[in-house]
Amino acid sequence: LNALKNSKVRKLDPDHITAVRCDGISIGEGTFTVVAGPCAVESEEQTLTAAKAVEKAGARIFRASLFKPRTSPHSFQGIGAEGIPILAAIKEETNLIVETEVLSPLHLPLLIDHVDMLRIGSRSMRSYELLKEVGKTRMPVILKRGMSATLEEFLLAAEYILAGGNEQVVLCERGIRTFETYTRNTLDILAVPALKELTHLPVIVDPSHASGRSSLVIPASKAALAAGADGLLVEVHPHPEEALSDGYQALDIPTFEGMMGELKALVPAFGKEM
Amino acid sequence: LNALKNSKVRKLDPDHITAVRCDGISIGEGTFTVVAGPCAVESEEQTLTAAKAVEKAGARIFRASLFKPRTSPHSFQGIGAEGIPILAAIKEETNLIVETEVLSPLHLPLLIDHVDMLRIGSRSMRSYELLKEVGKTRMPVILKRGMSATLEEFLLAAEYILAGGNEQVVLCERGIRTFETYTRNTLDILAVPALKELTHLPVIVDPSHASGRSSLVIPASKAALAAGADGLLVEVHPHPEEALSDGYQALDIPTFEGMMGELKALVPAFGKEM
Amino acid sequence: LNALKNSKVRKLDPDHITAVRCDGISIGEGTFTVVAGPCAVESEEQTLTAAKAVEKAGARIFRASLFKPRTSPHSFQGIGAEGIPILAAIKEETNLIVETEVLSPLHLPLLIDHVDMLRIGSRSMRSYELLKEVGKTRMPVILKRGMSATLEEFLLAAEYILAGGNEQVVLCERGIRTFETYTRNTLDILAVPALKELTHLPVIVDPSHASGRSSLVIPASKAALAAGADGLLVEVHPHPEEALSDGYQALDIPTFEGMMGELKALVPAFGKEM
Amino acid sequence: LNALKNSKVRKLDPDHITAVRCDGISIGEGTFTVVAGPCAVESEEQTLTAAKAVEKAGARIFRASLFKPRTSPHSFQGIGAEGIPILAAIKEETNLIVETEVLSPLHLPLLIDHVDMLRIGSRSMRSYELLKEVGKTRMPVILKRGMSATLEEFLLAAEYILAGGNEQVVLCERGIRTFETYTRNTLDILAVPALKELTHLPVIVDPSHASGRSSLVIPASKAALAAGADGLLVEVHPHPEEALSDGYQALDIPTFEGMMGELKALVPAFGKEM
Repeated sequence: LNALKNSKVRKLDPDHITAVRCDGISIGEGTFTVVAGPCAVESEEQTLTAAKAVEKAGARIFRASLFKPRTSPHSFQGIGAEGIPILAAIKEETNLIVETEVLSPLHLPLLIDHVDMLRIGSRSMRSYELLKEVGKTRMPVILKRGMSATLEEFLLAAEYILAGGNEQVVLCERGIRTFETYTRNTLDILAVPALKELTHLPVIVDPSHASGRSSLVIPASKAALAAGADGLLVEVHPHPEEALSDGYQALDIPTFEGMMGELKALVPAFGKEM
Repeated sequence: LNALKNSKVRKLDPDHITAVRCDGISIGEGTFTVVAGPCAVESEEQTLTAAKAVEKAGARIFRASLFKPRTSPHSFQGIGAEGIPILAAIKEETNLIVETEVLSPLHLPLLIDHVDMLRIGSRSMRSYELLKEVGKTRMPVILKRGMSATLEEFLLAAEYILAGGNEQVVLCERGIRTFETYTRNTLDILAVPALKELTHLPVIVDPSHASGRSSLVIPASKAALAAGADGLLVEVHPHPEEALSDGYQALDIPTFEGMMGELKALVPAFGKEM
Repeated sequence: LNALKNSKVRKLDPDHITAVRCDGISIGEGTFTVVAGPCAVESEEQTLTAAKAVEKAGARIFRASLFKPRTSPHSFQGIGAEGIPILAAIKEETNLIVETEVLSPLHLPLLIDHVDMLRIGSRSMRSYELLKEVGKTRMPVILKRGMSATLEEFLLAAEYILAGGNEQVVLCERGIRTFETYTRNTLDILAVPALKELTHLPVIVDPSHASGRSSLVIPASKAALAAGADGLLVEVHPHPEEALSDGYQALDIPTFEGMMGELKALVPAFGKEM
Repeated sequence: LNALKNSKVRKLDPDHITAVRCDGISIGEGTFTVVAGPCAVESEEQTLTAAKAVEKAGARIFRASLFKPRTSPHSFQGIGAEGIPILAAIKEETNLIVETEVLSPLHLPLLIDHVDMLRIGSRSMRSYELLKEVGKTRMPVILKRGMSATLEEFLLAAEYILAGGNEQVVLCERGIRTFETYTRNTLDILAVPALKELTHLPVIVDPSHASGRSSLVIPASKAALAAGADGLLVEVHPHPEEALSDGYQALDIPTFEGMMGELKALVPAFGKEM
């Protein structure tokens, strides 16, 4: 991986670790951090219900998108800037850190003062002008791997953000596109230890997009822990069957609670805390 | 392909064809249109030399990028807005239509008055907010297939532009990412007749990115013609070995002239004009 | 492609060409050779009807499988050795060269005296013990590319046959497996000129398996010719809708006749004879 | 997965489990079974050293190939039938179950009386005539997934063996071919729980071929356990740097011992025994 030489993402020695810190939590330093929430903000009620439930179950960061990049322009595109007060309500009524997706440089100014953490989705991993803009901020950001990005390309996308001076980057493996159709994507579980060899940045896994099936989210999450991931990014919805997007891969609240219970019991065996 | 039902990109009957018109030329209506030029504007001299040569050889549209999306932030990122006067010089000194890549909504206002046609690159096919902005203009646009996009996803990306009211879209097959590494990408040649079955929009082929090897550009171009493409998007550089990007896949001027001679002789056998 | 050094398949200079000869025809030496016939021998009537029709339309070699490698054991597995008299009837009643698939070393002795040419299917490209057995014969053989084989692996599979002393190998590109599902496989059209750069062996294309759709077979065949292929391997069935296997990708006889007419008109423009 | 209807591999209800039994061990019934050994039998000393070491570390089954399917005919093809006495020595000097690869129907009679368990490699998953022959035996067999096989195709390959009356089949996920090149293949970890949903057969994982890098074998193995696998197939060599094949992915003996220690500590947390 020659292109990584002299890069800022490169791991310099086995102990070289960057922890991404946000509002009292630290990702990548011996913790297993769960980011959870619905695919999209749909209504205040749906969002608050999800937030309170994931907080109660032990998640520390709440995910919810206002702007949704959808394959078809005729699908639900997200509630947009109208949802900002809903995110504000989450911050008031819970102790969760609030994270949301930014998918255009035009949206960045709208979001930056209202959320704690940004997410760059798989479709935007190669939107280098967006990465440059995010690199100018000092906000923690979850960068998801492009669905056809090699590890080298993924790390060089992160390099765009670090090169701008923002080192608060969490890498997220979320499955790659292959010929297999039983799962929505193919979870490249070995990306986790491979990235740990190559970079000092924290690495989390999105079991929801990787599998595209709620029945596979729990084994995917356990495999992520076992492979050395620093956390998860999970879709949870109070009523998956009514979700406006991605409902088939969201966990309902009791299933998420069950998974969190299982994970809490397993985490110490892998030398981490939760 | 259920998601195409009720879409604007869908072909309604076998004779349903949209020609994309620009400054006296028409793409998709029985012509074989060659878009040619260097990967990037590097200097006025390099750009003008390339432009005059491709015009002389029979190309009608000149391609040259000011902004380059590169895998690494440490690679040449394009000359940027400083190159706009160079594109103006092309328009003065030749009869070529000038086309360039737009890769961020932030750049669109800079480019829109200075070029005749926009290009949306493979990395940006899923930048739906950019597609929406381009859909608000009435500029002809070449939309390149994402390197891991299915034909359905490709057509739905075009739908974002059409849904905004801009029907001037030329689809460009440029190779998809597979396990094969001899070529940079795998030219999905059957995407051409498949798209012709599914949509009324014109379809061209980029043999340069598809192959990533100048030695394969000529057979790729002939195959595109034979498969029913409406034209080509080809990289040509006066000195490929000195190019700041993608030199290994660019044709030098004599090779491009030779290819154009061969294509002119073949085009009538496929019922087209050039 | 280091592994090709010192191989027998490697092209030593631009003029290094091996023609595969069989019963008066020569593949790879300026001709465009069409191998055509049904996926499988189903009955004497179906097979003879197909054979006479493809001969009349200009095909020189007849393809028809007795043994079929099917994804499910519960699908039609081919008529087996019972069909040998049917192949004998073809040889009596036509001037066609008869080709069939060998998919196990156990079948080779049954087939070797009854056909003129062997085919090794995509699923068997990595059956190296079979390749070694075929290498011990002196029969012409069509070796199809494995659906996930790189060009290097494909050439090294051919090397197994050449290493045994049998140089009568025709390579056949038949599409590779990718994420795209509109076509059955992705025709890697640039494999044709790439193989022509790397090896002295003839290269043909199977447009039927590559596309998996009869509507795409004609453009695929023209693209193969334009890319430099030495011929085609095409599925033709008197009644595709009644075929016991692969009917959706077979041409009916009138469509095949039409295609052959078009190809005959195009072949001279590409410097070949038919 | 329509093709699985009425198949023998299909899981009929959540409790439907088939345990594969061999010489006192049982795979798939609450145990985590480790199959370990060198890629190939190279010499009596190398093989015995490896066997004794893996037995001491806790492996129950010994893997070692006599016949090797290699990409190039000029690479080491295995010691062949000459190695049978070496396998006999393993059975005398240890309590290990001995497993080896069968890659041609021609080899089956040579092997069947000398080993306890057969392996069908990734390249042979589509060699249906071989699967039929193995289906006629009553030997336990490890069937590895083809490198480009969907889960449905993989299960239907197993169906060939079950349809012959042999239900002693262990499925092995060993990585699929994708665009990523950092790892030799992409370990499709979610194949494990997906197969567990679809079939009653046991499922193990080959972390060595999946990763192609000894540094990733331990995290891959832990992920396999966490995802619900019934065991592992691991390459171990006394001197990986001198191995005649696949040395870069083999564990040396101390590393294997370390991994076994870690796994023994983790297995109970996943409700299994070792």
